[in-house]
Amino acid sequence: MAEKPDEKKVTPRSQDFAAWYNDIVLRAELADYSPVRGCIVFRPDGFAIWEAIHDELDRRIKKTGARNAYFPLFIPQSFIQKEAQHVEGFAPEVAVVTHGGGKELEEPLIVRPTSETIINHMFSQWIRSHRDLPMMVNQWCNVVRWEMRTRLFLRTTEFLWQEGHTAHATREEAERETLTMLEVYRDFVEEYLAIPLVVGRKSAAERFPGAVETYTIEGLMGDGRALQCGTSHFLGQNFSKAFETRYLDDQNQMQYVWQTSWGVSTRLLGAIVMAHGDDQGLRLPPTVASTQAVVVPIWRKADEGEKVLAAARAAFESLTQAGIRARLDQREGLTPGFKFNDWEMRGVPVRIEIGPRDVASGEAVVARRDKTGPEAKSKAALASIANSVSTILAEIQKNLYTQAKAAMVANTRKFDDYAAFKHQMEGEGGGGLADVYWCGSAACETKIRDETKATCRAIPLEDQTVAGKCLVCGEPASERAYFAKSY
Amino acid sequence: MAEKPDEKKVTPRSQDFAAWYNDIVLRAELADYSPVRGCIVFRPDGFAIWEAIHDELDRRIKKTGARNAYFPLFIPQSFIQKEAQHVEGFAPEVAVVTHGGGKELEEPLIVRPTSETIINHMFSQWIRSHRDLPMMVNQWCNVVRWEMRTRLFLRTTEFLWQEGHTAHATREEAERETLTMLEVYRDFVEEYLAIPLVVGRKSAAERFPGAVETYTIEGLMGDGRALQCGTSHFLGQNFSKAFETRYLDDQNQMQYVWQTSWGVSTRLLGAIVMAHGDDQGLRLPPTVASTQAVVVPIWRKADEGEKVLAAARAAFESLTQAGIRARLDQREGLTPGFKFNDWEMRGVPVRIEIGPRDVASGEAVVARRDKTGPEAKSKAALASIANSVSTILAEIQKNLYTQAKAAMVANTRKFDDYAAFKHQMEGEGGGGLADVYWCGSAACETKIRDETKATCRAIPLEDQTVAGKCLVCGEPASERAYFAKSY
Repeated sequence: MAEKPDEKKVTPRSQDFAAWYNDIVLRAELADYSPVRGCIVFRPDGFAIWEAIHDELDRRIKKTGARNAYFPLFIPQSFIQKEAQHVEGFAPEVAVVTHGGGKELEEPLIVRPTSETIINHMFSQWIRSHRDLPMMVNQWCNVVRWEMRTRLFLRTTEFLWQEGHTAHATREEAERETLTMLEVYRDFVEEYLAIPLVVGRKSAAERFPGAVETYTIEGLMGDGRALQCGTSHFLGQNFSKAFETRYLDDQNQMQYVWQTSWGVSTRLLGAIVMAHGDDQGLRLPPTVASTQAVVVPIWRKADEGEKVLAAARAAFESLTQAGIRARLDQREGLTPGFKFNDWEMRGVPVRIEIGPRDVASGEAVVARRDKTGPEAKSKAALASIANSVSTILAEIQKNLYTQAKAAMVANTRKFDDYAAFKHQMEGEGGGGLADVYWCGSAACETKIRDETKATCRAIPLEDQTVAGKCLVCGEPASERAYFAKSY
Repeated sequence: MAEKPDEKKVTPRSQDFAAWYNDIVLRAELADYSPVRGCIVFRPDGFAIWEAIHDELDRRIKKTGARNAYFPLFIPQSFIQKEAQHVEGFAPEVAVVTHGGGKELEEPLIVRPTSETIINHMFSQWIRSHRDLPMMVNQWCNVVRWEMRTRLFLRTTEFLWQEGHTAHATREEAERETLTMLEVYRDFVEEYLAIPLVVGRKSAAERFPGAVETYTIEGLMGDGRALQCGTSHFLGQNFSKAFETRYLDDQNQMQYVWQTSWGVSTRLLGAIVMAHGDDQGLRLPPTVASTQAVVVPIWRKADEGEKVLAAARAAFESLTQAGIRARLDQREGLTPGFKFNDWEMRGVPVRIEIGPRDVASGEAVVARRDKTGPEAKSKAALASIANSVSTILAEIQKNLYTQAKAAMVANTRKFDDYAAFKHQMEGEGGGGLADVYWCGSAACETKIRDETKATCRAIPLEDQTVAGKCLVCGEPASERAYFAKSY
């Protein structure tokens, strides 16, 4: 907790988005750099957001029938090599343990970058008959991918995530599961984190190594870049064939299982900062805010203090009793102005200011973090403060989504001219989402990436009756797709 | 889920405790061996127990004022070397990452065996003034210690735990915190896991590497061996001096902080198995049982099935609505006897059997897992089944503790004769807890360990006015202590 005003101002968002982002993450004490390259420390205020995500998403995952389990951190190097695309994708970025207990290991162990291989090894022992299917497990854990360029939350060598892994008797059931989890993620991120998304399939170039299809939810950040917020993979039989994961069907025939895997990570913390934050700091959706409302008592003369503090305590109590995560800011030696800035930086959705005149009139000033200027402040009766704050919290949750959605719509453009598209991507402001027709060829995709740094973010699932021409080559388009620069 | 009776019988507990233990852990599907030496897989039924422990203990830890955070998995090798005793204790058992992203690292990274060093590094940057104190963080994570001989849950290369780390302005406050957490652990393990404990200080030989004092809670397992169930360390200024973790006191002087750390691990799952299990399998305290009550419908003739199933479903519904974690066993092709054995193996506290005659009489048979023979079964009215089961679950929670406590008392002996003590430790049945007077010297402790394999488990905190003579050397004793063979 900062005890005195920090001299250094936060970089304005419009001036340098990346610097603004780092300033906010560090100043709001969500995370800190660590002495280990690319690894970050999640400070309590940051980890509390991950705990809120864990608790709610875990509930939703379990509702689909998956159960939590835990598989080893270490994976034999030979496992990674069993699935051809998988090893190609992950081998370059693994951390390798070569020594344990003072001795060199016979076979090096890799620190899991993802767990398809070791989980298939176990599934191959647990699955015998069709009665064992579907098998659906999920784990919350740390994973390690050796990244060259790292960024707080968005790209770190170690990160936290959940990874679900399922095995099914039929292709259809596995495909359905893949889409079920995609929808669980979409609903969770849009509703709970108030981040609007586009949803779709990945192009072949952007698929998970070893997947038949990868589906994605993509957000659009404040700088016009897309952020992949979660993925759900249909793995087909790629891993079950590599690991001999088979079952005896009801005709007494051995069959390979059909599989899925799906995950979201602590990258979502970065999404929350970038989708909602402003120059004053974080703006947290009430769902994930460990402090939803802070009560700040204000007085100057000693004889006013007692009454003001009593009213502030009473307000704090009634908020707490109503189930609102509240906090009473009794810190001494700090001006009200400093406290206001501090709680705004930390993204607390509602601030309640109580001074001598408020006590006399039985009212308090309620300031909401989702608005600015005079609009942000209103009066509320102290007697029914919890009701008023509950209503406002629900409004903030909706309004953060509405604001982010408006920004996304404003920054999404249709293009049928490649030069205009290129101009947009080269301009300031990240480029936004481009909604285009595309022939689906790797050649056109590569050209776009090389010339504009934009990649195919998602191919929408609905409405794929395509009448247009490919943005790049002009040939008849096979699909509509969103292209954007991304994190 | 086993679909047909397993041919192999569980090894009787009295015949071979270690084989019995492994049989139960594997057959109840709590865990499985993994292809990585010493690393285990937590299967859903085992992980659910850890989740129950997490949820309840996390609540209790947060109530003391600590907040959760997350620190990196990797620690620079040089960090471990900064505190002399710490490196001596942990260097021989670390796993070392030497390569990342395809390149050899300049400085090898160790996979955390515990996090005092990296947390002190961060504390030294976050703590400036006495206003920042106390700083209290906790993390739930995986740790790795390269063990030569491993055993499911009890000693594994990777395990899961929580580790709390606190920094205080004064020695007294840190000492108080150490004991506060010891009591949090004692109350949690005795009340929530129904495992009776002895509580005390560790001898110098058994201290955590780098601690000034280590406090412990020790359980006594069914084979007469002690199991350390949790520890709380007073670290003094050992780490703060090694890492320059200092604060400006209210006299404007720089001072080293006083510290504590404390943890419990997935070893507690082994404690639950060994403290409560019997030849039929697990016996789970209702608090941690993911299924607290299972409803088994029983019928032979097809025309009976409908009524029985309807009654079973109604019972299941009323249990669920009363907040009891219930399950309806509708599996086909399995005999009631197989199902009974299966749920007994999995440790489900209460089984409700409903047959045609029960439906007619409006009653069900309720079988409780904490008792055997005719005592285990009673009749309960279907109309008020949830009430009856609630009452029985509360009784089981208490009774498992009472039974384990009686076993511990029966297996705790006072000795003032070394030959008798030695004879007891050499005999069958693990030896039990020995309550002895001791001079406190390392020489006598070493002699006991070398000759009997027993070690000092705990030096009770209360009643240390000692009148006796040392069990070994006969010199005036300085303290009373519990010695036992241990895991």
